[in-house]
Amino acid sequence: MKTDHSAVLLISCKDRPGLVTLVTQFIHHNQGNIVHLDEHVDLREDLFFMRVEWTMDDFLIPREHIGEAVMKLNLGEDLHAEVYFSDEPIRLALFVSKDAHCLYDILARYEAGELGNVEIPLIVSNHTHLEKVGQRFGIPFEVFTIDAKCKAEQEQKEIALLREHKVDTVIMARYMQILSDSFIREFPNNVINIHHSFLPAFAGARPYHQAYERGVKIVGATSHYATPELDEGPIIEQDTIHVSHKDSVEDLVRKGKDLEKIVLARAIWWHTQRKVLVKNNRTVIFR
Amino acid sequence: MKTDHSAVLLISCKDRPGLVTLVTQFIHHNQGNIVHLDEHVDLREDLFFMRVEWTMDDFLIPREHIGEAVMKLNLGEDLHAEVYFSDEPIRLALFVSKDAHCLYDILARYEAGELGNVEIPLIVSNHTHLEKVGQRFGIPFEVFTIDAKCKAEQEQKEIALLREHKVDTVIMARYMQILSDSFIREFPNNVINIHHSFLPAFAGARPYHQAYERGVKIVGATSHYATPELDEGPIIEQDTIHVSHKDSVEDLVRKGKDLEKIVLARAIWWHTQRKVLVKNNRTVIFR
Amino acid sequence: MKTDHSAVLLISCKDRPGLVTLVTQFIHHNQGNIVHLDEHVDLREDLFFMRVEWTMDDFLIPREHIGEAVMKLNLGEDLHAEVYFSDEPIRLALFVSKDAHCLYDILARYEAGELGNVEIPLIVSNHTHLEKVGQRFGIPFEVFTIDAKCKAEQEQKEIALLREHKVDTVIMARYMQILSDSFIREFPNNVINIHHSFLPAFAGARPYHQAYERGVKIVGATSHYATPELDEGPIIEQDTIHVSHKDSVEDLVRKGKDLEKIVLARAIWWHTQRKVLVKNNRTVIFR
Amino acid sequence: MKTDHSAVLLISCKDRPGLVTLVTQFIHHNQGNIVHLDEHVDLREDLFFMRVEWTMDDFLIPREHIGEAVMKLNLGEDLHAEVYFSDEPIRLALFVSKDAHCLYDILARYEAGELGNVEIPLIVSNHTHLEKVGQRFGIPFEVFTIDAKCKAEQEQKEIALLREHKVDTVIMARYMQILSDSFIREFPNNVINIHHSFLPAFAGARPYHQAYERGVKIVGATSHYATPELDEGPIIEQDTIHVSHKDSVEDLVRKGKDLEKIVLARAIWWHTQRKVLVKNNRTVIFR
Repeated sequence: MKTDHSAVLLISCKDRPGLVTLVTQFIHHNQGNIVHLDEHVDLREDLFFMRVEWTMDDFLIPREHIGEAVMKLNLGEDLHAEVYFSDEPIRLALFVSKDAHCLYDILARYEAGELGNVEIPLIVSNHTHLEKVGQRFGIPFEVFTIDAKCKAEQEQKEIALLREHKVDTVIMARYMQILSDSFIREFPNNVINIHHSFLPAFAGARPYHQAYERGVKIVGATSHYATPELDEGPIIEQDTIHVSHKDSVEDLVRKGKDLEKIVLARAIWWHTQRKVLVKNNRTVIFR
Repeated sequence: MKTDHSAVLLISCKDRPGLVTLVTQFIHHNQGNIVHLDEHVDLREDLFFMRVEWTMDDFLIPREHIGEAVMKLNLGEDLHAEVYFSDEPIRLALFVSKDAHCLYDILARYEAGELGNVEIPLIVSNHTHLEKVGQRFGIPFEVFTIDAKCKAEQEQKEIALLREHKVDTVIMARYMQILSDSFIREFPNNVINIHHSFLPAFAGARPYHQAYERGVKIVGATSHYATPELDEGPIIEQDTIHVSHKDSVEDLVRKGKDLEKIVLARAIWWHTQRKVLVKNNRTVIFR
Repeated sequence: MKTDHSAVLLISCKDRPGLVTLVTQFIHHNQGNIVHLDEHVDLREDLFFMRVEWTMDDFLIPREHIGEAVMKLNLGEDLHAEVYFSDEPIRLALFVSKDAHCLYDILARYEAGELGNVEIPLIVSNHTHLEKVGQRFGIPFEVFTIDAKCKAEQEQKEIALLREHKVDTVIMARYMQILSDSFIREFPNNVINIHHSFLPAFAGARPYHQAYERGVKIVGATSHYATPELDEGPIIEQDTIHVSHKDSVEDLVRKGKDLEKIVLARAIWWHTQRKVLVKNNRTVIFR
Repeated sequence: MKTDHSAVLLISCKDRPGLVTLVTQFIHHNQGNIVHLDEHVDLREDLFFMRVEWTMDDFLIPREHIGEAVMKLNLGEDLHAEVYFSDEPIRLALFVSKDAHCLYDILARYEAGELGNVEIPLIVSNHTHLEKVGQRFGIPFEVFTIDAKCKAEQEQKEIALLREHKVDTVIMARYMQILSDSFIREFPNNVINIHHSFLPAFAGARPYHQAYERGVKIVGATSHYATPELDEGPIIEQDTIHVSHKDSVEDLVRKGKDLEKIVLARAIWWHTQRKVLVKNNRTVIFR
């Protein structure tokens, strides 16, 4: 039976025989009941990925020592392990500019309790346009105007504020400003962006205009972890929709906005469900 | 490293703690290296499903004794276990009538080696129309004309022929004839049908005409295991495509045919990859 | 060149030669410049459908006489003609219950000006749950509690209120209450519902539970004009999304909600763009 | 009523008021009955596009003079007009290399009469691999081995052969060889290619490998008219399918092949239905 108190272990390492057995024995012997187990072997790169979730009710190891205990299992080379607990909320900060569609979409899900165990303590923007949206939902809305001169300084203030609010994950919900490398490095694999094209096509500025010019018959959206290389980070989710010659640039924008909010919401879902592992600029998503 | 000699074990039973550990230990202790493991717990029905694939090169148990050894693990109530070996081909018989699109599609994949370790020793039809297709691909094409009076007798002959050809799985590739209960019971969960609608909508005859009359904006196709209840068997794969008022019944048929062959091909793929488990008229597919 | 002042004429009648010429000549001779023309002939039923949009800047006939002038063209039997003007807003009332996802989605589009020339003077609900959403967007929120005894009376009050607010179109944005025949007849082809399944499958109550029970591999949503026959009205838009054995009923609901809001939004878009014609329980949509 | 003898007129020119009226009057006065009319105005470029289909039974102008008569209508600047007749078959040549999936798909449709009024007099290849496929369908299969030295000469022979067979349209059904500019210029907007990615992403060689490397969550296919700029021609049709981390390059190829044949088949359909107009490297498709 599933309870509200479970642990999630995410592992990636070099593959070798017996890894699944090692991990499941470890959990079983410590009186955890496995409720979900997903495993993936990348045969091309010889990499092992695992996500295992078990009940904590009778687990013999206290949560603060689980990580250490996992390390002692000597699973494999290049081991990367993360442990999460379902009763510890993930804290998101939403970064926005002027477009409200992704923001409303996330907040409506949040208010309805559809995001799972998530808290949104903060909205950050480079403009004041959406201030009233924050007010309506009772979420602090902080404006940091950015220009070339003040960017580094403003980002430092943003980071301090995020730390103060114990933010785990930054959601760029159509934040039309590039975050600097140093900002992104503060939240490795924890800054999620939505780009309004099916990457790698139409990276950079004005993708709908690029798409219109090329005369494509589909438009898309891509949610990915932000990395220092613009629009090059590991992709979490993508989707496309058909368009035709009847669609003006404005129609592409309109259709694309629907994709953007859905694709971003799915990415947030998989991320906050702790179902995403990142390796070599690729994601493994145990959906 | 993956070799060409692997075993696949499919298990379903009542869930209880430790099942994954039991199975993986069993394989590990017998010197099998797990290359794929998928597990699913149906929390609603408290059921456990597992698919595990391991290398047979150094495995200590001979293949004919593996099933027995699995039973001795005392996994859980209502245990259903199947063992397959990647080097033992699955033998398909294709049942067809007059429409050739699914038949050509399957044979083209077969000839190109895209179906994996599959053999197609036989095509069966209730009409002679597609006889030349069989000839072109060098596959025996057997005609069994069916009417109400002779149906039982003809089906007995078909079954005998299928047994003679050691057929595992029957593919109804737009076979426009209902197979009797007694036929289907000869091949439990091994008769795959393609129905030209998104079931449960438009079951029965002339689904595209029904869809046209209802004025739907999508048409679909459904591949499922045939059961004695017409169009009610466990669903393997479904897909839909958008249609509009511009589409006549003939256009629905045209667009639908593309769906039919793709959806059927995907169902055949999952089935022959031994990735499908059936329980309570539902499928678990470890794709 | 397109201006902000255009007229839209929607026509359906029995087909006969020369109809397009008659209409385009009529517009041309009265100094209208056609900016969009769509025409469809239903060859099966021998019906003619047309949507034509022209600039009103120099048009010789005053807008209040255009309908009359069209009737004098003697187009065809069973003529149904509607004339709309792009500068006259469409007034929507949103009917809701407890689920907020469609409501927020529509209001976010409305606030961003994405719905075109539309006004939303009123939200109606049978519960108080979403009252705060109306308040946040500054839109009157009227609660009409419904039970079997008071339904007729309450609906009369609702109709009076809608008339008072000059409402053209009622959007059932997950209004979990059946509107009576007499209510629907007050707004023929102007009550838009969203049903949370790919109709005609899973009509009626709890479609996601029905879908789960059947073990389908897709779930869907359908937006249609409400008619006295529950879930049987003319379909405007449908879409589906893939699901798997991993999806619980709750997951189907979660995935389905995304479809519901997108499908409903598209239906509202086509409707308010005056691109939908209804005939014989089917829609022609000049998208 | 629709007959088998109809004419299709495709027009593009600079937009101006009255064009629809001019054309429909022209047809009406010459006793043609319009059965389909589609019109599109590109407001951005101020361009007018039209496709009109009418019955030829009582039409007063002989078919060989219709083009001339259309020119006399003085429709607009930069007029491009094409006239086709439904009873005159379109003759396709299929260009292939080693992969058979698109070839079988097209030939199966052809044999079933699903391509409309189309003839396939010839298959051309740079390899002998698929010779037997041509033989099975009774279609001449001509092999032209290509290397850098002989390419120009071989292409001249191909062109001569195509002329001899009165070929209108060349279908590159996974022809893994670039056609030279001079070849393409012989068949302007009549060489259809299928590229195995969602262009403009992954143009050039080995798109599935590129897609795998980038870690995308969708793969796609694009059918376009070939132009001297590789993979840059006007797009006719595109579609995508979801993939995951479980999909190896081989899986992407397998899933992609299904897309390739469907997308190419749709492009052939729109092209042979004379529903495609090309202007400024973009297509208008009156589907």
